[in-house]
Amino acid sequence: MSDPSSRLNIALAMPQDVARRVFPARLLERLEPGLNLLSTEPLQEFDSPRSRSLLARADILITGWGCPQLDETVLNAAPNLRYILHAAGSAKHHVGQACWDRGLQVSTAAEANAVPVAEYTVAMILLANKNVLQLARIVHTLHSAVEPEDYYPQLGNFRKRVGIIGASKIGRHVIRLLRSYDLEVVVADPYLDPEEAIELGAELVGLDELVASSDVVSLHAPSLPSTRHMIDARQIARLRPGATFINTARGELVDQDALLRRIEQGDLYAVLDVTTPWSLPTDSGFYVNPNVLLTPHVAGSLGSELERMAASTVEEALRLSRGEALRFPLRAADLAFTA
Amino acid sequence: MSDPSSRLNIALAMPQDVARRVFPARLLERLEPGLNLLSTEPLQEFDSPRSRSLLARADILITGWGCPQLDETVLNAAPNLRYILHAAGSAKHHVGQACWDRGLQVSTAAEANAVPVAEYTVAMILLANKNVLQLARIVHTLHSAVEPEDYYPQLGNFRKRVGIIGASKIGRHVIRLLRSYDLEVVVADPYLDPEEAIELGAELVGLDELVASSDVVSLHAPSLPSTRHMIDARQIARLRPGATFINTARGELVDQDALLRRIEQGDLYAVLDVTTPWSLPTDSGFYVNPNVLLTPHVAGSLGSELERMAASTVEEALRLSRGEALRFPLRAADLAFTA
Repeated sequence: MSDPSSRLNIALAMPQDVARRVFPARLLERLEPGLNLLSTEPLQEFDSPRSRSLLARADILITGWGCPQLDETVLNAAPNLRYILHAAGSAKHHVGQACWDRGLQVSTAAEANAVPVAEYTVAMILLANKNVLQLARIVHTLHSAVEPEDYYPQLGNFRKRVGIIGASKIGRHVIRLLRSYDLEVVVADPYLDPEEAIELGAELVGLDELVASSDVVSLHAPSLPSTRHMIDARQIARLRPGATFINTARGELVDQDALLRRIEQGDLYAVLDVTTPWSLPTDSGFYVNPNVLLTPHVAGSLGSELERMAASTVEEALRLSRGEALRFPLRAADLAFTA
Repeated sequence: MSDPSSRLNIALAMPQDVARRVFPARLLERLEPGLNLLSTEPLQEFDSPRSRSLLARADILITGWGCPQLDETVLNAAPNLRYILHAAGSAKHHVGQACWDRGLQVSTAAEANAVPVAEYTVAMILLANKNVLQLARIVHTLHSAVEPEDYYPQLGNFRKRVGIIGASKIGRHVIRLLRSYDLEVVVADPYLDPEEAIELGAELVGLDELVASSDVVSLHAPSLPSTRHMIDARQIARLRPGATFINTARGELVDQDALLRRIEQGDLYAVLDVTTPWSLPTDSGFYVNPNVLLTPHVAGSLGSELERMAASTVEEALRLSRGEALRFPLRAADLAFTA
């Protein structure tokens, strides 16, 4: 039991409904006795007298989706604040220059948030290589069993090539999970070197080669001005006949019109968990094409998976209470290369 | 290079089209120089003069799907035969009492055949826990994105319970693959002890408890007279509301009428890769219920996956050529407990 006066003060900053969904009481209880949780009620804004009073005492802020921006005015009201621990993947919306100027240490749950996206991707890869969902559609349409190889003679999850675009946290976790399967994994990333790729369990190749040679191509690059439409008409034309393209990253990365045109030729499958806009127009061809599986941005952390991010954030706070360094620090420079 | 006269003679026994699909030439080439492949053309029957001549010389028979029964007459024509290496999962159809009486050593590729079934199962578990395929159906029906948690507040692959019925080769491989995920795995099997279950990565529980407490229940028991309808109306009633039931084993294990009735109540999902009969009648309710995914017996080895079984069989032959024991021996007693 540490001396209460020496314990770091911690406050939550996020909308009430986010706090309820992400931080069950049993998780917050783990903060004690190493830390002093100022209130189980989160700060939803930074202007009220209550918020000002908590900000004035907080050493650590645990933030969540929808946390208001931490600008200079807010930080001036928080003279003791040293750490921002974000219980979600991207801190871009509330952590900005003012935080870096003040030398705040920031951590995110991006690593925990990568897990469900990678899991969704692995499931879709395994089904894609065997055309399972296309075959299910045929059975339900014909009202009859069929011989799978009559439709897809090349199917199978043995020694097929899977191409991972982007050695992001998610891309890396996909590659790690794929080690349990007899698949040949290639990865394209301008910031990865060949040895690091081998250590991960993949072979580093150029983007053009990856796209042209993979049976499944899965996109895990960040959405940045420089990556807009990185999968353009030229890359889409390069995809192998019968290949499956998976996008769990951002719609902006893909020339969707070119993608739909190629799909409508009948020799490409797509699994799209994200599109631009996120809700496509009602008359979009993606809704009606049998070779497209649209899922409603479900790959990321949802439901029970929110607790994984919260648990990761609580772990970071406990590390601070023991005088240890953050495990998942975010640096200002990282923001240029991450989602 | 071993002395040709001392090499074991090996022959293939299976229909020509099976041999072509399962044994590419590059695999058969690996048998040399340790073994003497009598002919690259398989024996398709055991009655012709050519078959009799090859049988008379064979020490090892590599068999495949559709190999005719190895009865006493056939074995009498094969005085040197000591090993039967089957390049598929179940040897029940061609290996019988006559083989055991003669003391033949038998090996199967059941371990290799378990791999794709387990992979299919893992993919379906990951999608089931997030209701991914139900959500895709909603998006494609509404022509609009939706909020996943509005439909399935409990979704997620974090700390959900997965119940594996049967610690068969397939069941064990599912459990091994699930170690990479944050899921709680329970297993029911009358022949498994609790320590062995823990070593595998699961907790041993009774069948009733497994069925009543799991978010996903996956069936991996052998089809035997004693296991017919082991998932009966009583067990089906016990499944949790919102649970998913996966069957990649055999339709006979399940009271399908009771399963369909429960599904039609609207609170159960099913993923069925096998049914009885394998092609259900055209008017079966399974075809039209949105909570059912029927796939056409695609989980087992198909396409490129046949080579995994063939490679495993070639490895067994190479072990024999080096004087080593079989890695995957099948014993007469095993047949009472395996598929």
